Amino acid sequence: MSAEASAILKNLYAPILDEIRLLERFLEEEFALEEPFILQLIQYIGRFRGKQIRPALLLMIGKLGGGEVTGEHVKIAAVIEMIHSATLVHDDILDSAALRRNVETLHRRWGERVAVLMGDFIYSRAFALSTEVPGMAQVLSQTTNTICDGELLQIRHRFLPDMGEEIYFKIIFKKTAILYAVACELGGCLSRFDPEDCRKLRQFGLDLGMAFQIVDDCMDYAGDEKVVGKSLGTDLHQGKVTLPLLYYFKSLQGQAKAAALKEALRKPLSAALEKEIAREVREEGALQSAFQRAEEFIQSAKSTITGFPTCLRECLEQVSDYVLRRRH
Amino acid sequence: MSAEASAILKNLYAPILDEIRLLERFLEEEFALEEPFILQLIQYIGRFRGKQIRPALLLMIGKLGGGEVTGEHVKIAAVIEMIHSATLVHDDILDSAALRRNVETLHRRWGERVAVLMGDFIYSRAFALSTEVPGMAQVLSQTTNTICDGELLQIRHRFLPDMGEEIYFKIIFKKTAILYAVACELGGCLSRFDPEDCRKLRQFGLDLGMAFQIVDDCMDYAGDEKVVGKSLGTDLHQGKVTLPLLYYFKSLQGQAKAAALKEALRKPLSAALEKEIAREVREEGALQSAFQRAEEFIQSAKSTITGFPTCLRECLEQVSDYVLRRRH
Repeated sequence: MSAEASAILKNLYAPILDEIRLLERFLEEEFALEEPFILQLIQYIGRFRGKQIRPALLLMIGKLGGGEVTGEHVKIAAVIEMIHSATLVHDDILDSAALRRNVETLHRRWGERVAVLMGDFIYSRAFALSTEVPGMAQVLSQTTNTICDGELLQIRHRFLPDMGEEIYFKIIFKKTAILYAVACELGGCLSRFDPEDCRKLRQFGLDLGMAFQIVDDCMDYAGDEKVVGKSLGTDLHQGKVTLPLLYYFKSLQGQAKAAALKEALRKPLSAALEKEIAREVREEGALQSAFQRAEEFIQSAKSTITGFPTCLRECLEQVSDYVLRRRH
Repeated sequence: MSAEASAILKNLYAPILDEIRLLERFLEEEFALEEPFILQLIQYIGRFRGKQIRPALLLMIGKLGGGEVTGEHVKIAAVIEMIHSATLVHDDILDSAALRRNVETLHRRWGERVAVLMGDFIYSRAFALSTEVPGMAQVLSQTTNTICDGELLQIRHRFLPDMGEEIYFKIIFKKTAILYAVACELGGCLSRFDPEDCRKLRQFGLDLGMAFQIVDDCMDYAGDEKVVGKSLGTDLHQGKVTLPLLYYFKSLQGQAKAAALKEALRKPLSAALEKEIAREVREEGALQSAFQRAEEFIQSAKSTITGFPTCLRECLEQVSDYVLRRRH
């Protein structure tokens, strides 16, 4: 994380510092009695814990929406963070990633067996916890199912630069945005917001999540590995078609280069060609267009919550701005 | 499956043929509207579907326990089969298995990414379905959590022939027996059996599951790949310490061979040594002792249900006998 982003985040989380501490204590106590081997793995995975934006959103909504943050808020915030952690552990296997937050990934350090099983372990524990709060288990298990569906859709569309924006947006809606949407919506539900406001929170979270993923996909072309804390440039290498590449491909319309790019992606790219394509994505405007699309989603997110109480609205706006700034 | 085992099973499932059909129709309809890619994968995984003993137990208990088999029975039977399928898909990755029921495993056919995600997809769908029947979601997600815990415990104790029986039984209790226990117990719960009978069904399922896993572990040393339909001899190769090996190690007590075996397991075994150890496990009585232990669990299972209505009792006894006979 850049110093700037880190400072913003600290400021942003100031109103919910106590609640973030409750969340961390909850996660610690939840696993305190596990077998030593599992405890060790859980603690290792804890080192990947980052900004915890999803649970933070839920807690902010609970705290600043006029109600009180209850044990139920903390539990469901923990469940959401656990679901996110489990997807990361499995994603890192899928992506053959070596680093996550500058720490060796679980499958590199402990082997694939352990990584597959720890993902399953965390998912199932998250579901078990969610059943302790009425009305939560169904939406959270369906959300997880949608996330997997989105990831499979992405695999299905690898190496296809002509798959179109619509498929891309469907993929990131499912694999990323929905968990933001549910974090925000459930924050509202647990605080007994009226249904219309819960719906708005869901829409806010969806737009925020879409922007988050687009920025993530932009960073894969433009980020600094040390700042981002994970391997970059992997999307193109793995044939994952993200918005910057889609826009670059679109910009080539009608040119012989478009057909050549499509053809080139069918087989593993040479390092030189990969570098060349990444450079053109960065320099020919595609990256900028993609980033603008993220900005539009943030505008849309903000417009949904204009009628919210000032305190909550300003806080959610700041999170929205942060999602864009983390590119630096 | 041997012709003998197959004939037994056909006879055994005769009273619940309609219910098994309902289960299969349910599973088909549940996924009918998925994206074509996911549907294709689900249908592929369907080819691994075997004896479906766990859901069959639940349905037998529902049908022969004096009540009626409802949509809830079918749904929870499906959830249990789905949880089992998801563990198989992930297990096959962990075991680098090439075949399952004589069909190429999912990760071999479609790659690891797809296999990891399809396991997650099926788990999360199973949890989502379980929330539709009151009181089921918590026990089923906790059970899945215990299964993962057991598998991790097994990984932790690889290459340790002196780990002792107690750890072995703890591992198979968690990774295998508990799902049998829950299938039987929930069959009783859904049919409004009294709590004492539900407890007995759970105990019956536990013993049955312990026996099932021991027989499975014996078959890995003594089975015929064509009959069993999967790669055999993999436990020793992977350093998984199962009951036949534990008993063999115990039989060497005090001999220099014991220390040599312990030492040998620390590094990958040569093919010749692997063959030699497997032969001794088969021929020096260890395999037979392990099988006897499975028979004791079956005796215990049967003794728990002596007071049950004749029809149900006889049916459950036949399943118990089948678990032992499938070694042929």
